[in-house]
Amino acid sequence: MITEYKHTYCLTAAQCNAQREVAPATLIQQIIDVATEHADTINIGFQRMGKNSALWVLSRVAYEIKRYPGILEEYTITTWIEGYNKLFSDRDFAISDASGEVIGYARTVWMAIDKDTRRPTDLTHVADPEVVRTDLVCDMERPGKIRFPKEHNEASGYRFGASDIDFNRHVTSRRYVELIIDQLPLEVYDQCLMTRFEIAYSHESLCGECVKVMSGCDPSTDALISTIESTDETQKCITRAWFVKREDGSSVPAAKLLEY
Amino acid sequence: MITEYKHTYCLTAAQCNAQREVAPATLIQQIIDVATEHADTINIGFQRMGKNSALWVLSRVAYEIKRYPGILEEYTITTWIEGYNKLFSDRDFAISDASGEVIGYARTVWMAIDKDTRRPTDLTHVADPEVVRTDLVCDMERPGKIRFPKEHNEASGYRFGASDIDFNRHVTSRRYVELIIDQLPLEVYDQCLMTRFEIAYSHESLCGECVKVMSGCDPSTDALISTIESTDETQKCITRAWFVKREDGSSVPAAKLLEY
Repeated sequence: MITEYKHTYCLTAAQCNAQREVAPATLIQQIIDVATEHADTINIGFQRMGKNSALWVLSRVAYEIKRYPGILEEYTITTWIEGYNKLFSDRDFAISDASGEVIGYARTVWMAIDKDTRRPTDLTHVADPEVVRTDLVCDMERPGKIRFPKEHNEASGYRFGASDIDFNRHVTSRRYVELIIDQLPLEVYDQCLMTRFEIAYSHESLCGECVKVMSGCDPSTDALISTIESTDETQKCITRAWFVKREDGSSVPAAKLLEY
Repeated sequence: MITEYKHTYCLTAAQCNAQREVAPATLIQQIIDVATEHADTINIGFQRMGKNSALWVLSRVAYEIKRYPGILEEYTITTWIEGYNKLFSDRDFAISDASGEVIGYARTVWMAIDKDTRRPTDLTHVADPEVVRTDLVCDMERPGKIRFPKEHNEASGYRFGASDIDFNRHVTSRRYVELIIDQLPLEVYDQCLMTRFEIAYSHESLCGECVKVMSGCDPSTDALISTIESTDETQKCITRAWFVKREDGSSVPAAKLLEY
């Protein structure tokens, strides 16, 4: 059984963001893709889960990166299962460049829900202790609890359209991340590198739903906190991000980012 | 020299749209990616053009499809250069399923612009007659001139954010297509198949720009015409699409689509 699964990507020109690097939303999409491919390979994927009327849903993603792969660069995402319990499965990732040097890590937390009731289902019947790799190291802190600060910027609005919807009929993770990224102007990304990003998903969103997006800073950690909420203030997701100056690697507090 | 270039894709669960098929924006992105890969392979790509301070820009895309590849399905996009003149290069595509059956075709028109002046540059120095394949058949009509009808729906607004910007610092083709797709509700795509889609790009868009998106119908062709315009009414792109009912393949006039 393949317990350590690898996928090598080459970042095409069309896939690059304005900084000619892999965009955070693309990186997270690839992390999800690699997880899905590995799950399919070891027969705990979409098709197997479907037989039990269950769906994998992503609860949290966090990544830490030294640098983002650039245009036409080859990089490899390696994934393995760190562990699981009745409700959650922890899946880790290492991102390495063509020379094999690790340039980043990611951690994800997955759960399975029943297609019809949308309630969590027991993972023990799909989780095989043999797939767990406790010997592999994911050298980054676990994602933590994120609270939205009282002080924040003015909310911007968005209405989810057909192109934002995935095969489970809810809004894609990609779109959530893009709406959060769009909270800051392009100049921030030109001048600063987002070195750590965490997202926790709380509620699914449907096509046609209107949401508001807003950001604030957590003075105790210097992190930028952003959230997407429905108009009735149900939290869809919440994120936390840290930035450094591209020039000298010094940290940039969220308060400064919001002044751009 | 490789004059007929192929790339095989497998549509992962995370890449599917709500109909569990490849989304039009993803298909167009893949068409652009395959074109870019082929251009790189025959040394008329990003890096070579950059040496002459030039960039490839896409002027038109049109595709016709019998069915869209579905979840976990393998499909191959084949591309070749049909011809070129001083200003334009015509590149064609065939989309085939795992059995080799062609399920769709695409046509694209490319030009090169100078990075600084944004004016078209002469293509004759990169276009080699040996790469042209006049023996391969792209069995679909060429894209035509599209005019926006006087009668149309109310415009919806959008402001381009950092995540909408590509490595050339302008808005991605993907985002244009998604904004157009989002003009119709999800139910249309559940019940109808978009069998032909054409897009003509007129002006680049920048980060922070506000645009309006609107659709109308062309009664003479039953096509749905959509456009993205800046607030000063500069046309960014215009598209034309034809739909059939999924149930029986009968054509659905644009007027009916707009009533959903």
